[in-house]
Amino acid sequence: MPNMEDILTIGKLVDPLLIEYLRRDISNPLQNIVLHQFKAGGKRIRAALAILSCEASGCLREQGLNGAALVELIHNYSLILDDIIDRGDIRRGSPTTRAVYTEAMALLAAMCYRESITELANACHNPEEVRHIMVSTIREVIEGERLDILMEQSGRSGKYIEKNRLRSISFKDYVGMIGKKTASLIKASCEVGCVEAGASENFREALSKYGWHVGLAFQVADDFLDIFGEKTGKTKGKDIIEHKLGNVVILYSLQSLSDSDRKALLTTIRKDTISKNDLVYVLALIDKTDARSESKRLAYKYIEESKRNLTILPDTEAKRNLLFLADFIIKRTY
Amino acid sequence: MPNMEDILTIGKLVDPLLIEYLRRDISNPLQNIVLHQFKAGGKRIRAALAILSCEASGCLREQGLNGAALVELIHNYSLILDDIIDRGDIRRGSPTTRAVYTEAMALLAAMCYRESITELANACHNPEEVRHIMVSTIREVIEGERLDILMEQSGRSGKYIEKNRLRSISFKDYVGMIGKKTASLIKASCEVGCVEAGASENFREALSKYGWHVGLAFQVADDFLDIFGEKTGKTKGKDIIEHKLGNVVILYSLQSLSDSDRKALLTTIRKDTISKNDLVYVLALIDKTDARSESKRLAYKYIEESKRNLTILPDTEAKRNLLFLADFIIKRTY
Repeated sequence: MPNMEDILTIGKLVDPLLIEYLRRDISNPLQNIVLHQFKAGGKRIRAALAILSCEASGCLREQGLNGAALVELIHNYSLILDDIIDRGDIRRGSPTTRAVYTEAMALLAAMCYRESITELANACHNPEEVRHIMVSTIREVIEGERLDILMEQSGRSGKYIEKNRLRSISFKDYVGMIGKKTASLIKASCEVGCVEAGASENFREALSKYGWHVGLAFQVADDFLDIFGEKTGKTKGKDIIEHKLGNVVILYSLQSLSDSDRKALLTTIRKDTISKNDLVYVLALIDKTDARSESKRLAYKYIEESKRNLTILPDTEAKRNLLFLADFIIKRTY
Repeated sequence: MPNMEDILTIGKLVDPLLIEYLRRDISNPLQNIVLHQFKAGGKRIRAALAILSCEASGCLREQGLNGAALVELIHNYSLILDDIIDRGDIRRGSPTTRAVYTEAMALLAAMCYRESITELANACHNPEEVRHIMVSTIREVIEGERLDILMEQSGRSGKYIEKNRLRSISFKDYVGMIGKKTASLIKASCEVGCVEAGASENFREALSKYGWHVGLAFQVADDFLDIFGEKTGKTKGKDIIEHKLGNVVILYSLQSLSDSDRKALLTTIRKDTISKNDLVYVLALIDKTDARSESKRLAYKYIEESKRNLTILPDTEAKRNLLFLADFIIKRTY
């Protein structure tokens, strides 16, 4: 029977590679800074997805390791930069690179991550194809981050952002944003695993679609935790405090609230700073709606869709792990 | 007769490539942000060096264009990030990407530059070798920037930096820092030109050493302008205001001032903020020494050394341009 511990162990197989490539050809003080984000942990889900996709395509696990390390580094590269962009001091319960080493040093560390990513691509079995996925995925993540920032309703100063904020966001806008911000890299993780395995076009397409939908579900669940979660090391109502409209729970609430309640929610989320009372008020408005169950329903829909794509794959342990992993995202959240 | 206008025209040959690669596969709003740094101008010296090195190695100019665009993009990538690190609002007399589009968007733009750099490397004639130079050069620039930051004596908050500031800096430390921060990329520009031309090992070594010494002279001259310059769009005494000890003029001054004057200079440069009076005072202390002429002597020494390396090259227009360019760095400064 698949279990999450085994899957996490598979993801952690890339850790020695991450250390090796992150430390390569940089000074000792810089190594300390660079390894901070690595040491902060993380579940290596993207690495696990790449390795499992490689195995599910009929290849040995080892064949997928460099590609798996690469996608995991892209993820960590984006996290360091995210924390700079959001002035984040805490992630996964620990101080961020920025908080410990200053913003300037965190930026230099992120630049180092990007160079190690290039070297991992060079070491892949199909470097050309992996590089192509790498560049287009990083560009998608950048665009997703740009949209996410502009979906904030307040809090970040600067004329350009104030002028360009997205004031009304459709469900399609939202899915477009999370697709780029989150699903693109999860999809890419599966694709890199396939490319490294030399998988058939059929398998690659199946695993790519699997990854895409897992990624969408992953972000929907993350949005849910960013509103309701407490045990996850996240502040309850984090996305409300950060003025985010790009959260599925808030979007669903806006859709079903009365006109006056909708206006009240928007006015509150657009305040310069959101007090504890404001937060309680917004959470109460959200609880008037079925946003909680609707978000759950959406995450389930994406997970069902992700798993359906795997029917063409032969029944292997890797496939069973991928199916289990998809379900786990929902189970740990709802 | 070589002249600077022709050389600048050669550098500008990469502009269409820069636009093409910078815009590639990103959204229109992001294109605007990304092109801001490009449009702010710049002399494309690094591109010119790559193209001239390609030509001086006996190849057609066209052969060197992708590599030339690549090194120019690395330079502009580092400038956007520098302005984030130093919270710089003005560069070359114009507002920086950060100032116009906010820090968050400038960071995303810099990430886009890095992806275009990868794609330019893919398009090179010798991608593998160019990629190797690209990664090791970017790592050197990162390390140089790290050292430059730690050579500041005040002004930047954060425990890590306060604890790790370099309080006493030798001439060797200084050359190590500027070698990484500035000379490495100028050397790399010449090397990429050679690699793209398929130059002999002799030629590559000669042009690499030429570039290295031109780069050192370039930074020494830049340091001079950062203290004495006014016409260059720079604030007079900029590096003093920014508490920098990693400036050759300040280093030379410290070496030859009396004990009490040296202490006074250090105490002033270490103040939390440097007033107009402080600046006048430090400039007066510097004028007590021969730091001005010593810096000039050093720049001349590096330029002579750079030119000496080119003796093995056949007499071509490209070689004459390279010799002229080396001299020009001094002439425009001193």
